Amino acid sequence: MRTRPLKVALLGCGVVGSEVARIMTTDAADLAARIGAPVELAGIAVRRAGRPRPGVPEHLITTDAEALVNRGDIDVVIEVVGGIEPSKGLILSAFGQGASVVSANKALLAKDGAELHQAAAEAGVDLYYEAAVAGAIPLIRPLRESLAGDRVNRVLGIVNGTTNFILDKMDTTGAGYSEALEEATALGYAEADPTADVEGFDAAAKAAILAGIAFHTKVTAADVYREGLTEVTAADIASAKQMGCVVKLLAICERAADGESVTARVHPAMIPLSHPLASVREAYNAVFVEAEAAGRLMFYGPGAGGAPTASAVLGDLVAVCRNKLNGSTGPGDSVYTRLPAKPMDEVVTRYHVSLDVDDRAGVLAQVASVFAEHGVSIDTVRQQGRDGDASLVVVTHRATDAALSATVEKIRALDSVRDVASIMRVEGE
Amino acid sequence: MRTRPLKVALLGCGVVGSEVARIMTTDAADLAARIGAPVELAGIAVRRAGRPRPGVPEHLITTDAEALVNRGDIDVVIEVVGGIEPSKGLILSAFGQGASVVSANKALLAKDGAELHQAAAEAGVDLYYEAAVAGAIPLIRPLRESLAGDRVNRVLGIVNGTTNFILDKMDTTGAGYSEALEEATALGYAEADPTADVEGFDAAAKAAILAGIAFHTKVTAADVYREGLTEVTAADIASAKQMGCVVKLLAICERAADGESVTARVHPAMIPLSHPLASVREAYNAVFVEAEAAGRLMFYGPGAGGAPTASAVLGDLVAVCRNKLNGSTGPGDSVYTRLPAKPMDEVVTRYHVSLDVDDRAGVLAQVASVFAEHGVSIDTVRQQGRDGDASLVVVTHRATDAALSATVEKIRALDSVRDVASIMRVEGE
Repeated sequence: MRTRPLKVALLGCGVVGSEVARIMTTDAADLAARIGAPVELAGIAVRRAGRPRPGVPEHLITTDAEALVNRGDIDVVIEVVGGIEPSKGLILSAFGQGASVVSANKALLAKDGAELHQAAAEAGVDLYYEAAVAGAIPLIRPLRESLAGDRVNRVLGIVNGTTNFILDKMDTTGAGYSEALEEATALGYAEADPTADVEGFDAAAKAAILAGIAFHTKVTAADVYREGLTEVTAADIASAKQMGCVVKLLAICERAADGESVTARVHPAMIPLSHPLASVREAYNAVFVEAEAAGRLMFYGPGAGGAPTASAVLGDLVAVCRNKLNGSTGPGDSVYTRLPAKPMDEVVTRYHVSLDVDDRAGVLAQVASVFAEHGVSIDTVRQQGRDGDASLVVVTHRATDAALSATVEKIRALDSVRDVASIMRVEGE
Repeated sequence: MRTRPLKVALLGCGVVGSEVARIMTTDAADLAARIGAPVELAGIAVRRAGRPRPGVPEHLITTDAEALVNRGDIDVVIEVVGGIEPSKGLILSAFGQGASVVSANKALLAKDGAELHQAAAEAGVDLYYEAAVAGAIPLIRPLRESLAGDRVNRVLGIVNGTTNFILDKMDTTGAGYSEALEEATALGYAEADPTADVEGFDAAAKAAILAGIAFHTKVTAADVYREGLTEVTAADIASAKQMGCVVKLLAICERAADGESVTARVHPAMIPLSHPLASVREAYNAVFVEAEAAGRLMFYGPGAGGAPTASAVLGDLVAVCRNKLNGSTGPGDSVYTRLPAKPMDEVVTRYHVSLDVDDRAGVLAQVASVFAEHGVSIDTVRQQGRDGDASLVVVTHRATDAALSATVEKIRALDSVRDVASIMRVEGE
């Protein structure tokens, strides 16, 4: 074994960073044995010095991240700061110094992944990011490497723990969205500003990363259709139950049937209770991958949290260190298919449409004829009257989002329709 | 991209081999793009020529595997023959020729893995074997690489599809073992001679491979305690149901609490319905991994079959080809911990013991005192009388296998005990 240590700069020392620092210290011998050389934590860049950081060596702390990255002897930079800048600049500086990078930064990778991968390739170094999607769950590596000899057609997953916790609460307790969010915040599952989670931005970034890897093409967060769960009501959850379904915020990446384009989207959807994703509870994550030869695979585990995310970061650290010692690099960005990302309009799926209508004869016929006009075939209709009011729940067969939208617009204008109470997609069948 | 192709020798052209050949032909352009160079199937060694092999190029078929491996221009050998010899000799010949090897051979890896890994390391080539455990499910790579920065404490899984199919049938239809086996055979899930599956040999080989990788030590099939499912009765399944459990044939690899030894075992066990492994149906496989930082991860998918296994083989093919082009090798065997594999006696778990006893006062007290004598604490007892006969079902708290065996031996000798109807371990809690 080589005795000269590989030097690691850690950028960020929050929930994840402090766990990385802790494990690098306590499990130093194990890491050395697995890498074939010791690894040394050379410095830890933080925004504010002087905070208490139990278990983190005080003398390694600096507020000058740029100087740490550029000091000239760093072999690997671990970036767990998040956000676009200064992370991006620091990662490019690291490449300039010949250092490999391990990042957990989904927002940055979803936005500028292609540029960063190219910079890494030009510098002859690695950019690994297992921790950016679904925390500890090995997902990037299986997609990039284990399935490299297969053709992935679909990735369908729960990749945000906060929203899964909220929906699970709504499902099990009958709570409304605000109440469930409050509980998630109280338990530390949701941040003070939950926008990134509940509006689906976090899941959309992960969907972009997954779609890019799965289909060997370039997909950015801007290509991902995004709908959060703030408008999911207790009534939607109850309606899903009646259908033998549960509501989940799903990230769905698909290759078109003709193989010539891809789509990526994040939105709440009903999935049948019999689907393995239906039983993913609390803040857990799980991702289904459908590949031509492999069939249906599922990966399940904690999708966030300090220690689980640190586990993913350290797995990458071991890999990039081994590559350094080998004088090689791992598989880089694979975007050879150059498949275009199509907009939501062209996505084909099923829909659950709930209408408040007048309780009089002929309404169902009127509504049904609008669906028919737009070529949206109806699977089931459930009609419930109550004192002059009635509700009509329509579940469609597969149709394009464009056709469904046009249908709903026309239905909304019908005299007999008081309100389109909710529209939700039905997936996983 | 390099234009000179990497040359691949395929040994074996059965269910898996023919799928490998097919995909290498149909997806040649994709594989080339992902590797960075074309791969060419240079020859296919089979036992008997002249058989119809649809889609397999006739001119590549040879019966002289040794000559194919030694022809001097082979970069990678894919071994999907199975068994110890001639596979082992052929793999060693491949290493001697500087060729990397992709193997799906669990029996060989569980027996001589250490020797083969050393030979690969000395030759400076790769030995990859994702397909040897749980078919298409990425498991070896996540354990070897994704979790390389973590400490795995436990691997618990369903790694044999045939036996899971049989137990699932017994559970859902109430069928006995023979009847369920018959159906599995008729549907092609069980081979004409099902010994390797139903006696647990196949699962034991996989357990040895998983334990070795998970705990960075050497474990062979001979170190694995093995019990098949031929003695599982419809009564056991019914009894499990009464406890809210289901019976599964599990492979369990554990690091001892003191971290100083490991155990690996395969046997039928009851697991609670709430455990994610309980819902793994039909011939599917699933493996739970518990790691210190990552927490509990699960990997699920088709554990066998031509196309799924071929997917794993081709993922490895892409990886070893990339390494060849890089002039490097992937992570080799990691056995630095040198933890001893302890025998079954020292395994600690819970037990479900079913006794046929005389229906008279004092029997329970007698039985309970024998448990107490051996330090085996009882969790629950269920007593059912019927016409002079009675059954006593005892579920224990955690105890060593040695203590449980001694207890049962003494109980068997009691006058009031007519028969020890069944003993089954209870896991997953």
